[in-house]
Amino acid sequence: MDFTFLGTGAGMPAKERNVTSLALSFPEYDGDLWLFDCGEGTQRQILYSSVKLTRLTVIFLTHLHGDHLFGLPGILGSRSFQGAETPLTIIGPPGLGKFVETSLHVSGTHLHYPVIVREIVQSGIVHENEHFVVAVKSLDHGILSYGYRITEKDQPGELLVEKLRQNGIEPGPIYREFKEKPAVVLPDGRCVKTAPFVGEKRKGRRIAIIGDTRPCDQAVELSEHADVLIHEATFRHEAAGMAHDYHHSTSVQAAQIAKRASARTLILTHLSSRYQKEEQSALLKEAKGVFLNTLLAADLWTYHLIRQPR
Amino acid sequence: MDFTFLGTGAGMPAKERNVTSLALSFPEYDGDLWLFDCGEGTQRQILYSSVKLTRLTVIFLTHLHGDHLFGLPGILGSRSFQGAETPLTIIGPPGLGKFVETSLHVSGTHLHYPVIVREIVQSGIVHENEHFVVAVKSLDHGILSYGYRITEKDQPGELLVEKLRQNGIEPGPIYREFKEKPAVVLPDGRCVKTAPFVGEKRKGRRIAIIGDTRPCDQAVELSEHADVLIHEATFRHEAAGMAHDYHHSTSVQAAQIAKRASARTLILTHLSSRYQKEEQSALLKEAKGVFLNTLLAADLWTYHLIRQPR
Repeated sequence: MDFTFLGTGAGMPAKERNVTSLALSFPEYDGDLWLFDCGEGTQRQILYSSVKLTRLTVIFLTHLHGDHLFGLPGILGSRSFQGAETPLTIIGPPGLGKFVETSLHVSGTHLHYPVIVREIVQSGIVHENEHFVVAVKSLDHGILSYGYRITEKDQPGELLVEKLRQNGIEPGPIYREFKEKPAVVLPDGRCVKTAPFVGEKRKGRRIAIIGDTRPCDQAVELSEHADVLIHEATFRHEAAGMAHDYHHSTSVQAAQIAKRASARTLILTHLSSRYQKEEQSALLKEAKGVFLNTLLAADLWTYHLIRQPR
Repeated sequence: MDFTFLGTGAGMPAKERNVTSLALSFPEYDGDLWLFDCGEGTQRQILYSSVKLTRLTVIFLTHLHGDHLFGLPGILGSRSFQGAETPLTIIGPPGLGKFVETSLHVSGTHLHYPVIVREIVQSGIVHENEHFVVAVKSLDHGILSYGYRITEKDQPGELLVEKLRQNGIEPGPIYREFKEKPAVVLPDGRCVKTAPFVGEKRKGRRIAIIGDTRPCDQAVELSEHADVLIHEATFRHEAAGMAHDYHHSTSVQAAQIAKRASARTLILTHLSSRYQKEEQSALLKEAKGVFLNTLLAADLWTYHLIRQPR
């Protein structure tokens, strides 16, 4: 899984950091592409990345503040312009449908593919496909704001080839059946259970994407044992009062969430444009003091999440 | 008057050219700022220019296609965030009010200044202030698309100081009255007509901004004797068929409009992203073959229009 940070700033675009958008792609599966949030200018950021808009299948919105939303109509139009004809699903808080409909209608935008808008009205599973389940909980941001947890389905264990051979079962199409069925009939007529010939299931990966929020228990719940937790860090800790007033988090608070949730890796994003280079380093250092395995996202940086043993 | 081209591309953003927006500022007057069109990412382009969002007083939309419109909500929010409290007027085709209202409402954007949306339902004067009159005519673009003509009001002539002195009228506060009134009473009691002591009125400048359109008579009418005509040139002339099908113009067609209107200077903008450096030069060269005084706009280029004698 590849996380490409298309925009890592907060509120307003800056030269160094555009407003929020995160692309998630799955080269190990079918090459589909998801977007989390879609701030203004996201389609232009994509021009500088390896992201292919025509592969986009789902857009998830954490909340509807402009710096997470206003790039959406442009993405929809350009995806059509680039020739996409497959359906696109957009998932987010209520109001999303009205915004999409008004934007397309007023601008006379005719899409060459179907759009499905799914407005989330309660916590729970909001999307599922062959490989993943995506669930949300509402956070604490003044406006309705969802945190996302992406859970990869467990993978079948490896075939124990040595053991199969010891039992006189040679490689061939039958091996595939061993992975998929509880029992198989061998060419010699024997009926055998498959479980003893397959290793332990491999646990799927867990990702949490915590958009704009004050620190809250729901963020911890969504992030439990996450392989990677992506959390907003709008402010440095000295501005904790301001973070509270504006319904945001400091980098230290994000690190505390990661620690409480026993996450593996924390990636900070959504930094206020008031922080320049050195202050950004300080913001990261403060977080590392609480949770060592913390990284700071940058625009157009791609983080590759491998499958690690637990 | 300074024209700063914030975006000079068509349809979709490219690395070199963002989608359309043009800033017009008046350092010779009050330093106000106008925008013509507001494509996605305009607020980020402004970061690389000398344009100050807090000086913005009017936004004119030529039409509501996304590449001219989708940067508007972000501009409104950021202008407020930067501390502006003075009113902002937005002028454009019907549907504009609904788009602005929906975008602000759904995103929970609270502005600290009043917004006046004025939807243009017929040709004529759409804006006037102390120095300028702005009028529109509808063009030929499939969707309702307006061309703009900005006419500077004529300026009072210069005071003929030598002649005043010859008549025993010495410099002082009375000189101001000579510029403003038809007759004045001098300190010595004489009553004199002012006209003989003031030179000829200076003609105001004329600007035409022709957004997306096929070539049409209205474009010529708006551009009559314009000091500067800014015209879309989406295609090269070899693609005239495609230009017609998509309701656009070629650079040669733009030059023909400039020639028919006896404009002084033509600036081409809104180029399709299919054209790279050399093809852009060819596009310009084709236009110059028809109308020599043609310039090609580039992102973040500022054109300074001086007052020239006629």
